[in-house]
Amino acid sequence: MNDNLTAERATFVTHLECSLTGERYAADQLHNLSRAGRPLLVRYDLDSVRAALPRDTLAARATDLWRWRELLPVRRTANVVSLGEIETPLIPIARSGGATVWVKDEGRLPTGSFKARGLVMAVAMAKELGVTRIAMPTNGNAGAALAAYATRVGIETIVFCPEDTPEVNVREIAAQGARVWRVNGLIDDCGAIVGKGAAEGRWFDFSTLKEPYRIEGKKTMGLELAAQLGWRLPQAIFYPTGGGTGLIGMWKAFDELERLGWIGSERPRMYAVQASGCAPIVRAFEAGEEHAERWEDAHTVAAGIRVPRAVGDFLILRAVRESGGKALAVGDPAILAAVDACARQDGLLLCPEGGATLAAYHQALRDGEVDEDDEVVLFNCATGLKYPLPPAEQRLDRHGAIDFDRL
Amino acid sequence: MNDNLTAERATFVTHLECSLTGERYAADQLHNLSRAGRPLLVRYDLDSVRAALPRDTLAARATDLWRWRELLPVRRTANVVSLGEIETPLIPIARSGGATVWVKDEGRLPTGSFKARGLVMAVAMAKELGVTRIAMPTNGNAGAALAAYATRVGIETIVFCPEDTPEVNVREIAAQGARVWRVNGLIDDCGAIVGKGAAEGRWFDFSTLKEPYRIEGKKTMGLELAAQLGWRLPQAIFYPTGGGTGLIGMWKAFDELERLGWIGSERPRMYAVQASGCAPIVRAFEAGEEHAERWEDAHTVAAGIRVPRAVGDFLILRAVRESGGKALAVGDPAILAAVDACARQDGLLLCPEGGATLAAYHQALRDGEVDEDDEVVLFNCATGLKYPLPPAEQRLDRHGAIDFDRL
Repeated sequence: MNDNLTAERATFVTHLECSLTGERYAADQLHNLSRAGRPLLVRYDLDSVRAALPRDTLAARATDLWRWRELLPVRRTANVVSLGEIETPLIPIARSGGATVWVKDEGRLPTGSFKARGLVMAVAMAKELGVTRIAMPTNGNAGAALAAYATRVGIETIVFCPEDTPEVNVREIAAQGARVWRVNGLIDDCGAIVGKGAAEGRWFDFSTLKEPYRIEGKKTMGLELAAQLGWRLPQAIFYPTGGGTGLIGMWKAFDELERLGWIGSERPRMYAVQASGCAPIVRAFEAGEEHAERWEDAHTVAAGIRVPRAVGDFLILRAVRESGGKALAVGDPAILAAVDACARQDGLLLCPEGGATLAAYHQALRDGEVDEDDEVVLFNCATGLKYPLPPAEQRLDRHGAIDFDRL
Repeated sequence: MNDNLTAERATFVTHLECSLTGERYAADQLHNLSRAGRPLLVRYDLDSVRAALPRDTLAARATDLWRWRELLPVRRTANVVSLGEIETPLIPIARSGGATVWVKDEGRLPTGSFKARGLVMAVAMAKELGVTRIAMPTNGNAGAALAAYATRVGIETIVFCPEDTPEVNVREIAAQGARVWRVNGLIDDCGAIVGKGAAEGRWFDFSTLKEPYRIEGKKTMGLELAAQLGWRLPQAIFYPTGGGTGLIGMWKAFDELERLGWIGSERPRMYAVQASGCAPIVRAFEAGEEHAERWEDAHTVAAGIRVPRAVGDFLILRAVRESGGKALAVGDPAILAAVDACARQDGLLLCPEGGATLAAYHQALRDGEVDEDDEVVLFNCATGLKYPLPPAEQRLDRHGAIDFDRL
C-alpha cells in the first residue's frame, strides 16, 4: 500500500510570515491573518530539504499529494488525513484547444474538485493544532471538501453559502456531515457571518487565505505539474481565479522547487482567468493597481469564480505581473461555448470555470498573448458533473414502429 | 509525460475463444457473441508475456490503465485512446466499514465511473478494427463513457436508455457528442432495439459482453488491485453486479497474473452484490443453477445494477462459486442507509451501487460469511455526485438578527 500516508518523515517548517510585511510568526500555533490583516505564508528550511530529500527519492514515491510531505506543514503522521488525493491527469485537448494544450483535470480529486487539495491540508493542520469547530463561507466545492475531511477527523463544521449555490453542492456538504446554511447574499456576505462568529470565539475561521495552510495544499498543483512534465514547466498556465489560492500557491511552489534545485529559473506566464460579470482582479491588473476593489453586482454561470473581493488580491496580481502573464475576463456565452466544444470535440466535460480557461486561452491566442505552439496547461478545477447540463430530450416508444433511419 | 500512451510495446493476443464451448476465433477481426451465443474471451501467449515483461518493469511504469498494455488487446499504439485512466485509490472506511475494509473508488475515472475501463478498451479496439458507428443500451454510466471515448476517436454513437435514467446521465451522454434516446422500458428492451439495428447492419452492437473487449478493460480492476496491494489479493471482494463484466474480468485477471507468476494461487472470495428488487444472479446462485432467468418487474434505487438478464450469467456464477463466495441481495433501505453512513462517518460519498456493497458486507458479517479481520475491498463503481442526494434546506437571513447558538 501507499506509504506516503503512514511513513514517519522529517518536516522542515521554520516559521510563518506576513505576505505583506514579512513579519515572522511562530510555527505550530493557530493563526488566521497577520496583524496587518494579510495572509500568512509558511516558510521551510529548504537547504535542509535539499540535503534530506534527493529529487529521485521523491520521484520514486507513490504519486499522491502526500508524497510532498517534506514541503508540507503537517508534523505528525498521525494527523495525515486522506480520501485518496491522486495525482490528477493531464489530458490533451487537440481539437477544442490545440496540439500543445493540456487540461489538468482536478475534478478527479476527492469531492470532485481542487478544493480537496487545500482543505485536506488545512483540516490536517486543524487537527494537529487542536481545533474542534470550523466555519467557512463557500460557493460550494470548498464546503464539500471541508465537510468530507473534517468529518473524517471528527471536527464539527458549519458552512455558509450564497442562496443560489447549486443544489448538488449544498446536499453534498450536508450528506458529508456538515451543517449548511443558505444565505441571501454572496460569498463575502457569508464570510462576514463566519468572521462575526469567529470573533465571538464560536469557531475557527476557515475562509480562503484566512488560515495559512490551504495555500500549502494548493501549491501541490505546481509541484505535481513540474514532476509530471519531467521537472520543467509549461509556457503558460490558465487558472480560474476566485480567491486565487491556487495561483498564489503554484507561484510559491515554483520558487521552492527552484531553491531546491529541482527546476531552473524559467516560469510559465500565469493567466488569471475571471468572468466578465465578476472581474475585480482584471480591473485592478488593467489599472495597474496593487489591490483590487470589491466588484459590485457580481454574476456569472461560473459560480466558483464569483468572488467579489479576494483577500490575497495583491499576491495574485504580483504573481501574474512577475510571470509576464495577464488577468483576463471572459463572458458567460464564451464560457458555455467552450464547455460545449471541449465535450463535443474532445469528449472531456469541463466545469464552467474550466471552460473559462479554455475561452480565455482562445482569446489570448487571438490577441497574440500566446502562440499556437506554446505548451499550455488549463486548470479544470472541478468535475463538470456538478453543474447543470443542457437538456437532451429524445424519446422512443419501443411498442411503436421504430424508424431506424432517424435514430 | 506518461509514456504508457505513446510507447510502442509488444502485444500478445493469440486468439479469442467462446466462454461456453472453448471454440476458437481469430484475433484482429470484428466479433460479437460466439456461434453459441456466448461472450468471447481474449487469450494471450502468457509464457511470452512472462519472458518479455518482468514484474518490476511493469511496476516502474506510470500507474494508469494503459501500463498493462502487454495484457491488453490493442495492437497499434496509434489506437490507444485516453482521457486519463488513473489508478483508482483504495480508501479505508474504518467507521462505517471496519478496520480492514477499503473502498476502491472507481468514481475517479473519466466520466465518473468504472465503465470508462471497459469502454476505453472497446472503443480503442473498435477504432483498430475500423468500426465507424456504434449503438449501445445503457443505464447511464456506460453510455457516458462510450460517448466520451467515441467522440475522442471520431466514431458516431447512438445510445438507448430506460426512460427513468437519471437526467444527469442523459445530458452527459448528449453533451459528449452521442445521440441519446429514452425508451419506455428497461435496459434489455433497449438492448433489443440495438440488436435489431445491428442485424440490419446499421451499427456495431456494443452491449455488455456482446463485444469481446470491455471485459479486457474491466479486468484491469483486478490487475491494479494486485499491484496496489504489493502482489497479493484481499480476502474478499464485494462487487455490485449488473452485467457482471467487472467480476468476470477480475477473475480472468487473477488467473492471468498467476500464470505469469506474479501472484500465487490464493483468491479472494467474490461476493456478487445485487438489489433485492433485481436479483437474478442471487436467485440462480441459491437455486444451484448455472444460468439465471430474467428478473421480472425489476426495481431498485441502484440503477446501475438494475439488469434483469445478464448474458454472462454463467461466468458470474462460476467465478463466485469457484472463489467460495456468494451472490447476495440487499434492499433499497439498506443501500441508502449505507450511503448515508459512509458519507456521514467517513466523509466518502458512495454511489448507490457502492452503498449496496457496504450493506452486503455488513450482512455477510452478520451471517458469518466474513470475519471482522478479513481484508475486504468494496467497489464503488461511480461518483456519488451523479445520483440524487437528500435535500438539506436551512436558510439564513443576513439582514436579520442571527442567533449564533442555533447555527
